Amino acid sequence: MTQVAAPLITGMECHDIRFPTSLELDGSDAMNPDPDYSAAYVVLRTSEHEGHGFAFTIGRGNDVQTAAIKALEPYVLGRSTEELGALYREMTHDSQLRWLGPEKGVMHMAISAVVNALWDLRAKEAGLPLWLLLGEMPPEQIVDLVDFRYLSDALTPQEALDILRAAEPTRRERIEHLKANGYPAYTTSPGWLGYGDDKLRRLCLEAIEDGFTQIKLKVGADLDDDVRRMRIARETCGDAVRIAIDANQRWDVDAAVAWVRALAEYDPWWVEEPTSPDDVLGHAAIARGIAPIKVATGEHVQNRVVFKQLLQAKGLSYLQIDAARVGGVNENIAILLLAAKFGVPVCPHAGGVGLCELVQHLAMFDYVAVSGSMEDRVIEYVDHLHEHFVSPVVVAGGAYRAPLDPGFSSAMRPESITDYSYPGGPIWASTATAPPAATQRNHG
Amino acid sequence: MTQVAAPLITGMECHDIRFPTSLELDGSDAMNPDPDYSAAYVVLRTSEHEGHGFAFTIGRGNDVQTAAIKALEPYVLGRSTEELGALYREMTHDSQLRWLGPEKGVMHMAISAVVNALWDLRAKEAGLPLWLLLGEMPPEQIVDLVDFRYLSDALTPQEALDILRAAEPTRRERIEHLKANGYPAYTTSPGWLGYGDDKLRRLCLEAIEDGFTQIKLKVGADLDDDVRRMRIARETCGDAVRIAIDANQRWDVDAAVAWVRALAEYDPWWVEEPTSPDDVLGHAAIARGIAPIKVATGEHVQNRVVFKQLLQAKGLSYLQIDAARVGGVNENIAILLLAAKFGVPVCPHAGGVGLCELVQHLAMFDYVAVSGSMEDRVIEYVDHLHEHFVSPVVVAGGAYRAPLDPGFSSAMRPESITDYSYPGGPIWASTATAPPAATQRNHG
Repeated sequence: MTQVAAPLITGMECHDIRFPTSLELDGSDAMNPDPDYSAAYVVLRTSEHEGHGFAFTIGRGNDVQTAAIKALEPYVLGRSTEELGALYREMTHDSQLRWLGPEKGVMHMAISAVVNALWDLRAKEAGLPLWLLLGEMPPEQIVDLVDFRYLSDALTPQEALDILRAAEPTRRERIEHLKANGYPAYTTSPGWLGYGDDKLRRLCLEAIEDGFTQIKLKVGADLDDDVRRMRIARETCGDAVRIAIDANQRWDVDAAVAWVRALAEYDPWWVEEPTSPDDVLGHAAIARGIAPIKVATGEHVQNRVVFKQLLQAKGLSYLQIDAARVGGVNENIAILLLAAKFGVPVCPHAGGVGLCELVQHLAMFDYVAVSGSMEDRVIEYVDHLHEHFVSPVVVAGGAYRAPLDPGFSSAMRPESITDYSYPGGPIWASTATAPPAATQRNHG
Repeated sequence: MTQVAAPLITGMECHDIRFPTSLELDGSDAMNPDPDYSAAYVVLRTSEHEGHGFAFTIGRGNDVQTAAIKALEPYVLGRSTEELGALYREMTHDSQLRWLGPEKGVMHMAISAVVNALWDLRAKEAGLPLWLLLGEMPPEQIVDLVDFRYLSDALTPQEALDILRAAEPTRRERIEHLKANGYPAYTTSPGWLGYGDDKLRRLCLEAIEDGFTQIKLKVGADLDDDVRRMRIARETCGDAVRIAIDANQRWDVDAAVAWVRALAEYDPWWVEEPTSPDDVLGHAAIARGIAPIKVATGEHVQNRVVFKQLLQAKGLSYLQIDAARVGGVNENIAILLLAAKFGVPVCPHAGGVGLCELVQHLAMFDYVAVSGSMEDRVIEYVDHLHEHFVSPVVVAGGAYRAPLDPGFSSAMRPESITDYSYPGGPIWASTATAPPAATQRNHG
């Protein structure tokens, strides 16, 4: 992308950053009763820029995730973003590191953090927001970013090229559309399990006032509660608002079908993560059992191989990419291309710490250069922790405004990095917040 | 099991242990050209015994794996093996740690190491080898060890109980059979990719002399080489010896079918890991494409949910449990029960560091209390690194002898722990062995 040689990466810093979100029950759901939203955070330095990336976790284990990122330092030091594609492949295919997955879990999320930091750096070097950098890239270069291993029975490089070339002539009008109108969002803020009925009702009304046409409720802990909350939400929102439900992997296959059917009279738009993210066949069985209600999943899907199968098996109708779980931007491009091949809309997962900031770029790139469509597509929005970012998302009128600052919007403010560092930062050192301890055990 | 209260766990130690196996190309295959066989090793201490466990890795990243085990210390300190079932569930269901998988990769392997160490401790407290401790356990207690979440569409607790009860009346005769005859083994030692033709031929002859009736060849790097090596092996071994082939995840679906068909004239017994361990549908397509040659897989299968699907989709004909990748003994019991339900033989993966020592106990438990059968069942055997263990496996006449020492055979000799500690141990401090470095990159 750059016309002159990109400067070498001369330094890498890692930070274990945790926010005491469990105190407010923000982010509480059927499987995650007390998350402390956290980031295993990495900064890559050159003489001119910094590239920031992170893995999102929910508390305990963020130290392990940070150690995994640190283990990648020898790969990037002395390299530059001109080698980004090669670096992605080297880290993913390193046979010894691969043994720890392969391509899943802590080590893969670490690669994601570093790859995303490299993209933040590259976009800053180019002086462009990432979505526009990618959205203006020639189709051949985009295809070169993808690792097609294990995909060829569903998507070949030539098919990927055809998809990208079909969208190429009309890219410019979609770029202008995004700059003018942004990208539609939906909000999960009303629906956390830990909230009372009055708060649910109030937040539903606020969501409508804020221009959202879709909200999401967490379900799966207690059926009677879910029926009541779903009824309240539907009564409050009316029929024009789509209400998605999210079980966060709570159910076995038969239980998922029964539970969703019990909520069917309130017209749920999709059910998200009904069961284990590993259970392709289970998702397919649930999809058949609850039709015409749709299945959505993806935030915990480990890599492109599982997404490929979910598409092949018709296990999902909405594909929810996560910006920081699979192998970063490169693997997400593969997943966007798979979704386009199968004609399935991508509705990204967001929330957490900084996931909204990241994933907006991928959805906008998808619109510009891959699917070319916004139909039935929305990006999740959760309205907390954005204040910690240098270029926070701007959501207005129910839409993400197109980010214009150079980079991947991934950089956290220096004072937030300092204040929330665990366990030494001032927030955690104060007596007001109890650090995560082994005594806070959850029995699932 | 114990009649008096089990003593509390008062200490936990972790060790990063690495063996410089890359110098000899032992363990080289199409995906792993230069492994340094390693163990992220844990010791649990009570006032009376030590429980040992480990995750097996192949070098770089063993520090990350060790850090993940260390993160579990707060769960086990002050607890005892009487709470083993609860501890397994607490670690697996801890919502914050679960986010790092769920139930896969580094964090899940860490749980495996700790769970296995708890079982080693418990078996020592009972004064029994693990296979016999489990083999004499009442069916109800065994069922209580299993986490049935996500399994109920394939296996219910009642079905598991029925399987165990059906085998119960004849357990004693199978225990005596094991003590007298051991359990059949096959050997992978002749077939590593890095070995020359003469060494292959010599090791095939040695395998036959040693009483093995099945060997395994690594394949997948170069088809012409594989045809030549397979021909040499078949000519050397004759028709009575089964020759399995192992591609270590090298192929996409279509390539797997074509490659295996090209070797079909030499009558391969099974093809192992033809593609990504995550690709259930791919395995099923390959199984259809290469029939009557069979598919075997499992050493990299992340958990019981993926095994469930491989069975449901007929993606494998031989199920290869690994003792240290899924959530330890408890999850492997679930997998043995699933295999029994589907009538698929379990042929464990072994090799590495100490995997033979561990997995023999699980195969023998399966024979005694679950499947009740040895038909078409063999445990992999690789003849290196056993000298580092306190109670190494004994393989004679092509069979694992039943281990009789109390415990899980998981304890490494103290001097091996010291000598091979990385990076400070004397083996790595010497100039004769180059430590793993980032410059040793593999491009897959």
